[in-house]
Amino acid sequence: MTQQVELYRIAMRGPGDVSALEGLLQDKAFSADEVVAILGKTEGNGGVNDFTREYAASSFCRVLAPRLGCTPVEVEHRVALVMSGGTEGVLSPHASVFVRRQVLHKMGAGPRLAVGIAHTREFLAEELGRGAQIEETARAVHEAMRDGGIEAASDVHFVQIKCPLLTAERIEAARARGQMPLTTDAYASMAYSRGASALGVAAALHEVATPVPESAVLDNWSLYSSVASASAGIELTHSVIVVMGNSEAAAGDLVIGHSVMEDAIDLQGVLNAFAGLGVDAGVNAAARVVNVFAKAESSPSGVIRGFRHTMLDDSDITPTRHARAAVGGLIAGVAGCGAIYVSGGAEHQGPAGGGPVAVIARAADR
Amino acid sequence: MTQQVELYRIAMRGPGDVSALEGLLQDKAFSADEVVAILGKTEGNGGVNDFTREYAASSFCRVLAPRLGCTPVEVEHRVALVMSGGTEGVLSPHASVFVRRQVLHKMGAGPRLAVGIAHTREFLAEELGRGAQIEETARAVHEAMRDGGIEAASDVHFVQIKCPLLTAERIEAARARGQMPLTTDAYASMAYSRGASALGVAAALHEVATPVPESAVLDNWSLYSSVASASAGIELTHSVIVVMGNSEAAAGDLVIGHSVMEDAIDLQGVLNAFAGLGVDAGVNAAARVVNVFAKAESSPSGVIRGFRHTMLDDSDITPTRHARAAVGGLIAGVAGCGAIYVSGGAEHQGPAGGGPVAVIARAADR
Amino acid sequence: MTQQVELYRIAMRGPGDVSALEGLLQDKAFSADEVVAILGKTEGNGGVNDFTREYAASSFCRVLAPRLGCTPVEVEHRVALVMSGGTEGVLSPHASVFVRRQVLHKMGAGPRLAVGIAHTREFLAEELGRGAQIEETARAVHEAMRDGGIEAASDVHFVQIKCPLLTAERIEAARARGQMPLTTDAYASMAYSRGASALGVAAALHEVATPVPESAVLDNWSLYSSVASASAGIELTHSVIVVMGNSEAAAGDLVIGHSVMEDAIDLQGVLNAFAGLGVDAGVNAAARVVNVFAKAESSPSGVIRGFRHTMLDDSDITPTRHARAAVGGLIAGVAGCGAIYVSGGAEHQGPAGGGPVAVIARAADR
Amino acid sequence: MTQQVELYRIAMRGPGDVSALEGLLQDKAFSADEVVAILGKTEGNGGVNDFTREYAASSFCRVLAPRLGCTPVEVEHRVALVMSGGTEGVLSPHASVFVRRQVLHKMGAGPRLAVGIAHTREFLAEELGRGAQIEETARAVHEAMRDGGIEAASDVHFVQIKCPLLTAERIEAARARGQMPLTTDAYASMAYSRGASALGVAAALHEVATPVPESAVLDNWSLYSSVASASAGIELTHSVIVVMGNSEAAAGDLVIGHSVMEDAIDLQGVLNAFAGLGVDAGVNAAARVVNVFAKAESSPSGVIRGFRHTMLDDSDITPTRHARAAVGGLIAGVAGCGAIYVSGGAEHQGPAGGGPVAVIARAADR
Repeated sequence: MTQQVELYRIAMRGPGDVSALEGLLQDKAFSADEVVAILGKTEGNGGVNDFTREYAASSFCRVLAPRLGCTPVEVEHRVALVMSGGTEGVLSPHASVFVRRQVLHKMGAGPRLAVGIAHTREFLAEELGRGAQIEETARAVHEAMRDGGIEAASDVHFVQIKCPLLTAERIEAARARGQMPLTTDAYASMAYSRGASALGVAAALHEVATPVPESAVLDNWSLYSSVASASAGIELTHSVIVVMGNSEAAAGDLVIGHSVMEDAIDLQGVLNAFAGLGVDAGVNAAARVVNVFAKAESSPSGVIRGFRHTMLDDSDITPTRHARAAVGGLIAGVAGCGAIYVSGGAEHQGPAGGGPVAVIARAADR
Repeated sequence: MTQQVELYRIAMRGPGDVSALEGLLQDKAFSADEVVAILGKTEGNGGVNDFTREYAASSFCRVLAPRLGCTPVEVEHRVALVMSGGTEGVLSPHASVFVRRQVLHKMGAGPRLAVGIAHTREFLAEELGRGAQIEETARAVHEAMRDGGIEAASDVHFVQIKCPLLTAERIEAARARGQMPLTTDAYASMAYSRGASALGVAAALHEVATPVPESAVLDNWSLYSSVASASAGIELTHSVIVVMGNSEAAAGDLVIGHSVMEDAIDLQGVLNAFAGLGVDAGVNAAARVVNVFAKAESSPSGVIRGFRHTMLDDSDITPTRHARAAVGGLIAGVAGCGAIYVSGGAEHQGPAGGGPVAVIARAADR
Repeated sequence: MTQQVELYRIAMRGPGDVSALEGLLQDKAFSADEVVAILGKTEGNGGVNDFTREYAASSFCRVLAPRLGCTPVEVEHRVALVMSGGTEGVLSPHASVFVRRQVLHKMGAGPRLAVGIAHTREFLAEELGRGAQIEETARAVHEAMRDGGIEAASDVHFVQIKCPLLTAERIEAARARGQMPLTTDAYASMAYSRGASALGVAAALHEVATPVPESAVLDNWSLYSSVASASAGIELTHSVIVVMGNSEAAAGDLVIGHSVMEDAIDLQGVLNAFAGLGVDAGVNAAARVVNVFAKAESSPSGVIRGFRHTMLDDSDITPTRHARAAVGGLIAGVAGCGAIYVSGGAEHQGPAGGGPVAVIARAADR
Repeated sequence: MTQQVELYRIAMRGPGDVSALEGLLQDKAFSADEVVAILGKTEGNGGVNDFTREYAASSFCRVLAPRLGCTPVEVEHRVALVMSGGTEGVLSPHASVFVRRQVLHKMGAGPRLAVGIAHTREFLAEELGRGAQIEETARAVHEAMRDGGIEAASDVHFVQIKCPLLTAERIEAARARGQMPLTTDAYASMAYSRGASALGVAAALHEVATPVPESAVLDNWSLYSSVASASAGIELTHSVIVVMGNSEAAAGDLVIGHSVMEDAIDLQGVLNAFAGLGVDAGVNAAARVVNVFAKAESSPSGVIRGFRHTMLDDSDITPTRHARAAVGGLIAGVAGCGAIYVSGGAEHQGPAGGGPVAVIARAADR
């Protein structure tokens, strides 16, 4: 018996539109208990008050709950639901449904896509962005690797984390307990939570020396993971981890590869991720590629290759919306498709101002 | 005697920062009366209430006026000042200063960059988006070609137009006269004005049959110009035309080429514009390219290559901001630089959802 | 037997938070089949892509469906669910649950609050803003008055309508049928739909001469209803009508009164609505008032009492968000509470730039 | 000889429109060297990238410079120019021109409006929000009181401060010097700068015990000034102070009074400020009142009178824009006019969530 992973990219007409998933289940493309993770891009602002994430997550739960024989809330403990808000520019609302089943025979030779998931414990408001979040995240990454049958750190090509943020309500609650969160600004808390999560991945995969000092979060940009992708959301108080990698033990016809964008206009970095799997850029890419997963960031120096950008000083549009739109435009051009997963805020996820980009494609020799 | 055109790309630390132009004038890189056009990208929202355009334009006028021996207002009649608002994503605020002088000897062989300008008459609010705007724009394009010594329509590679928009005040004034403008929505009026301007270019360059019916504006997307670029601004009530092309009679070491993006993720279209001048994509491009001029647009069908985009339905961010960010991200990736001129709203400027992209680079054989 | 109407104002911690309604049902404050209407204020942008309305509506349906023994979708045909997006400034997300039951004895003397509801037929995209929408709305208002036992037009103090809008998708579909909707701009379509709905109310209550010419929509501002309130939403393709009035036949301890704001800063107009029920402004108001229902609008002339406002020319924030924030601030000051229903876009709902304001309070002699 | 102060409220059609000031100077209503301060409300977003403040300030300088026989830059050292961005909702772009001259005879009996100004020294990025800013501000307040002939702290009714903010550029410069500013978020830095400025006023006027600990900034909300109003702007690196009060020694026909709003919906607080000068609310107020000066704030607790507001969690609109719109709506209702000075972000300016409101009116007995 060996693990076979399939990836279905389904379009969404709105955050509450789960008709494509219902259709696949009705058509028996897979069964509900084979769904291991759903990564969605929803069309909200990706900020604190983006309820499209929560709405989409609850909609997916309602589809799966009766088929899994559990309550909608229990679905979230069985399936890794990661909804990332923000489809600026050419990006298109959609979800990636990862299906995992045990099969008798491996398809083709060589390593194939494997997926594992895990959950952290709940975090208190004052733990966000601090050592506790880094260490618990690292622990959960190892748990997810075991779950997916991925052995070496070098086999890991993307680690998606959904982590909590601070709301005015949660901040007040912490203060009432006599605790002081790292920030009182809800939007700012998203960056801290993403940053600590990413350093947790870096620690788990030996990309940085351990233990990582908590003072490094949002400060020492030389510490980062080349495969971490973290999104903060208002709808949860713990983190959900999805590890994607290749495994000799895995069946299926998909493979994953990754590269790193050194900055937000690093076309070559994007091309490398595709080339690593033997995929050409543009219209041809759309034929073999099933999805792309990447992080986008506004360079914290305020400068890209010597030219000033205005993303950090814009009081009308948040930096993450700017960055998703721009990097999404570049990657969509290479992928030949806007239905890709580009998430904003890449603190410690790739070098400062850059970010990881992973490609899942059909194996050339399938 | 022959025309020599130089292009200086100067960074701006804000819409009022004209220190780079002052420095060049002090250093005698050129004299004020050699400045024929300034195309700026300013860091406003690019919408109705974007005062960064007006602020930058008036700042440039204040620098040039004493040196030209005229008032700041008179500068606008001698120099084509086109300020395009919106530097979303990786785009960087800057200005392109076109300098034109008469020289004795032509540098190198073959056609070189030539520039010509013209002004239309003032437009009434009710003329925007209608036949009167189309026809007067076409007339002014021919005038600008003559001014620049550009003979054939096929030698024209980019036509930049700055055109007026409607404000609540102007709409009320028209109504008080008993006239009904095409729309009472200021933001919507920008699209009508850009559309009619572009069809004027298409008519002048024989890209469409003439006369163009005014009902085609924002309706018949099959009619378009492959080289028109129009920006609407609150600061003027007539249009300013800048024609860029190559001319055998021109001296200088710059050449211009162009291509068309068929949609907002048309990487190949962008690459073609660079390849036409023998320029490779990415880091290497930055060495030879002086600037890129392009238009970005949210596909009016709501779809890009079969996938829905959300730019037209976003009540938080205008479609032009979305489009500039995304297309700017793609072109900056190819150009290896964010200080490029990407302007939003490409109605009848390239095919629906796409747009023209022109590259000015140092000639390979200079 | 006589009709008794109760109004529960419940706070919402997010658009998916329906715990307060669940609590009231569990505590048997009322039964699910007594709920006749729910008017919510949700914390989205109130624009085209405001999914908080749809999310809240579906959340309320999920609570009521099992208790009504029907599907969530069927709930929408039995209960008038009107979610209005936008809680800018001091406004607070909440819902007004209208409960109606038959009781044996009338409480107190004099007219008391009565409520009736009705649904229109489905509208095609090309019918929005046109005669068909006006006439069908007027018909449904009469049906709702009969449903609520409200006899005379003068007994009607507020008519809430939830009406459809156009999306890029619906516009394309209409065009594919060879039909041309009034506008291709989704945000603009909301104004047309609200305007035609309000004129339908005005026609039903004899506030204007009938038939109302469809050319009056968004053009002849002298035609309006003093009690109409329309909100456009992406989540439905027909309209839902809720008529609120006083009836001698009604029991209960609530009464309703209304006034009209002549412009967006008409403090006296707001005070009149409260004074009509004998309620003082400020802290004291909060004791007797159960909720306030009002419409807010950006003066279409661009001017308020001789001073220019900037709401119509702001490309960063939509006019309806501006207007809700400002008028919400004024009414909340008088009401002593931010949990009030202030909805944006008051086309033909009160005079141009103004809007109706209705107050529901406990009867002084209860 | 005695000081006479006049206040001219002039409308602005845009941030560059200074025609009303030019008209008054041409009509000899006053001379340029009598202009002591100009407080403007400009129509930008009031955030980091609001260039309408700088544009308006430079436009006023260009009008005054030739008449004062100095350069535009020197004007800023002779006249207190305070441009506050943000005219959300019903607020109207305008400027308050304070004119001060020496006259022989005092008009009427009793104290009349007096105005004094002062400048602080330049602040380093790392001084913003810290003790250095508090103490230097307090010193400058005393200097401004002396300048205006205002003797007692109780005679001071409004202190307007324009203070610096941090930009990405300034933050980088400080880091390069080995210094760490309080925050790396430009928008957040505005709150720190306003807060320290307000505590400087409170210290100067003995409203709090001195020295004020710098840890109190944005933390101990029980410390505040009832008359301070601070606005942060990108266009300066020092602070400008304008003290307004009554003085027995002053001539003129204007008087000033103030009150405090306890929260953002404190109608009674607003009414008190008007009643203190014997002015009724609404249409009648507009006849006697020359202008209103107030601060607006999003309650940092996230709650107003027990009901949650959403201003702090909105990633589309900044909290200051929300607060200005709402509080502006309330005060404009009382003042009967939208051309009032309402500025956002009232940290330590009035109680948490509230703010000072001052009224300048013609004296009842003039």
